[in-house]
Amino acid sequence: MEKLQVKESCSIQESPYKADFPLLAKNPDLVFLDSAATAQRPASVLDAQRDFYETMNANPLRGLYGLSVRATQSIEDARMHIARFIGALDEAGEPLANSVVFTRNASESLNLLAHTLPQVVNLQQGDEVVISIMEHHSNLIPWQQVCAATGAKLVYLRLDAEGCVTQQEIEEKIGPRAKIVSVTHVSNVLGVENDIPAIARRAHEMGALCAVDGAQSVPHLRVDVRALGCDFLAFSAHKLGGPMGIGVLWGKPELLDAMPPFLTGGEMIDSVTEEGAVWAPVPQKFEAGTQDAAGAYATDAAITYLEQVGMEQVEERERALAEYLCRRLQELEYVTVIGPVDGAKHVGSVAFDVRGIHPHDVASILDAQGVCIRAGHHCAQPLLSYLGWSSTCRASVGFYNDAADIDRLIEGLQKVWVVFNGRN
Amino acid sequence: MEKLQVKESCSIQESPYKADFPLLAKNPDLVFLDSAATAQRPASVLDAQRDFYETMNANPLRGLYGLSVRATQSIEDARMHIARFIGALDEAGEPLANSVVFTRNASESLNLLAHTLPQVVNLQQGDEVVISIMEHHSNLIPWQQVCAATGAKLVYLRLDAEGCVTQQEIEEKIGPRAKIVSVTHVSNVLGVENDIPAIARRAHEMGALCAVDGAQSVPHLRVDVRALGCDFLAFSAHKLGGPMGIGVLWGKPELLDAMPPFLTGGEMIDSVTEEGAVWAPVPQKFEAGTQDAAGAYATDAAITYLEQVGMEQVEERERALAEYLCRRLQELEYVTVIGPVDGAKHVGSVAFDVRGIHPHDVASILDAQGVCIRAGHHCAQPLLSYLGWSSTCRASVGFYNDAADIDRLIEGLQKVWVVFNGRN
Repeated sequence: MEKLQVKESCSIQESPYKADFPLLAKNPDLVFLDSAATAQRPASVLDAQRDFYETMNANPLRGLYGLSVRATQSIEDARMHIARFIGALDEAGEPLANSVVFTRNASESLNLLAHTLPQVVNLQQGDEVVISIMEHHSNLIPWQQVCAATGAKLVYLRLDAEGCVTQQEIEEKIGPRAKIVSVTHVSNVLGVENDIPAIARRAHEMGALCAVDGAQSVPHLRVDVRALGCDFLAFSAHKLGGPMGIGVLWGKPELLDAMPPFLTGGEMIDSVTEEGAVWAPVPQKFEAGTQDAAGAYATDAAITYLEQVGMEQVEERERALAEYLCRRLQELEYVTVIGPVDGAKHVGSVAFDVRGIHPHDVASILDAQGVCIRAGHHCAQPLLSYLGWSSTCRASVGFYNDAADIDRLIEGLQKVWVVFNGRN
Repeated sequence: MEKLQVKESCSIQESPYKADFPLLAKNPDLVFLDSAATAQRPASVLDAQRDFYETMNANPLRGLYGLSVRATQSIEDARMHIARFIGALDEAGEPLANSVVFTRNASESLNLLAHTLPQVVNLQQGDEVVISIMEHHSNLIPWQQVCAATGAKLVYLRLDAEGCVTQQEIEEKIGPRAKIVSVTHVSNVLGVENDIPAIARRAHEMGALCAVDGAQSVPHLRVDVRALGCDFLAFSAHKLGGPMGIGVLWGKPELLDAMPPFLTGGEMIDSVTEEGAVWAPVPQKFEAGTQDAAGAYATDAAITYLEQVGMEQVEERERALAEYLCRRLQELEYVTVIGPVDGAKHVGSVAFDVRGIHPHDVASILDAQGVCIRAGHHCAQPLLSYLGWSSTCRASVGFYNDAADIDRLIEGLQKVWVVFNGRN
């Protein structure tokens, strides 16, 4: 089978980045195509995490000794860095560090919103919460719960034949009854990018707030919350090369101020009596209990690494990889790419089906060849039902992948086909 | 000033454990007496965390390739180990792994309970939730919020002159209207241990459920949930030498089954449609989003380390350290130990006051001498108000401390006194 010769593929031959990732460097035969589930971590992130525990480990906040002050500073430095990374700047161009709230993961960030925004917008029967049919369960079930509790209606933005939300759909579905619009930036299944500026504009015109699930975009695209025009952005560290167990909720400061707390307990109060409590200012108001200072420090290092690679380079390289991936998959007549035919429209993820073979079998046979992909509903069952699938395969790329990884996937799929059909 | 010569102090001369803790080993002049806030981590825990990311890093659950299967196994192995560690065993003595839910920290574990138990017990006006006046804010504010939302009354167990909850108080305050009793096992300020078996027995006699905040006990005592007789136990990994960002909620399986989910999203469902969701079985029902598999793996290693030291040894050594700490503090006529005079009654933590000197000043001057203690309200403002303090000093020991650390604290306090009073 002919290998792709066109110019853009040249840049994706032989990844210069794998050497920075211990798991990839130690396993040169491993093909990791599941970065949409979690990224691999560069050595600098692992070094940072260890460095924290070996040189500044203490409970951050309220400590008056050097270690604790350094632990606290590591959290505040990370907040500042994250704010700058996502363009959360004030009018003078300074990062709005306090608009960055640390959570456990993107799911918790979205749960925080679902538990607190209804009070801010006084959500009630007759109101609408608008999400899209391509949401990950974490940006779907919390809103189902909110609607069940308040009597508000859950409205779904649906997709065109290519899996995209059209401008017409945005205008039809986000109407005057909408109070909250919460939409993913990039689909974790199809890889399509939603037009967040248009969605946020429409939401605001209708008087609604706009939250964005950035779990699949922040690691892959240059994300600027001012350009997006949204009110909130949720994402997790582990998908951008940081550690597991820590996520982010960015919000417009005046909205974070207006929201009640979600989790309560240590560190999130100003004062407590037997009868009640006065909340600490944002962001501490939302950060109950001991914060993962080591995780924040390592997330800071993950962003530093991405900046060293350059987000423009990450974006370009991943687009070239996704294009190559789509094109090569489409060379196999028994493979159907789900979503846009144009590989450039896939941010990281490409879902596909191998005719007549269950995705679990595809993934298992690929695993035996050292190729890691995901199979299943990808925590997006309503999307799969809508598209008429119960399960799909999904390959997703990171900038550390290269054309050889994709060639290995294609060879693997050819073997899968032979195993089930006895011929190529 | 005469050094203690009695027998029990011999065992606390020269810690053999510091060498296992990189931060302590690299900083032989540092005196860390803030383990109640967070423990130091042994090298084996840091190795485990790195090992996860370098050899099995993948998103756990639902993955069909080797890395993801290993990541999933690391979480399940940790669950099993934790269940065994806290005595969560079935009648055949096998660990009830599924009774262990991973959370972000002990605070989140307690928030999970506060958000879900009211539905289980149908909490309403006229009912009572019983906590103690010595609760950390994380086991206090969530229940204040629950009571504000349901109209139930929050009842406080109060303390005798030594800072202990008496049997009489337990019988008087836990009455027939109690539906939920949630009490700390060990005070994070006074270090006193509550009689959980008696509290749980009384709660059950009155038809109430009994939750225990084990944040300050699980790292320091042999905790056996069957012997305690409680229904729930919350604790965090970072206080027992594990990483930050991960906590545990243990619960009786039938109660966990009866509870609604708290955080919703990925991995905690069985199936989702546009209209609703069917929850996954326990414990996944409570674990929304990507779990911190690296954190679970490292927590497993932390427990292995504690078992290698031996929890009996941890308990004995820390009791001897606390006794020595109390005795030496009491030698200083300008220092008041808050809580029991008997050092053996302090589990880890000893709060104290230096006459006429603000605790923040005490901590700062000690820091300049390389001695780390905590100063403030210790996230237990109602306790401090009840005792008549707004702020105290707190020194807390781990088994890795030794008598020399305590001697350094005492020398430091003598300098503090001289700084403010010009004479010893």
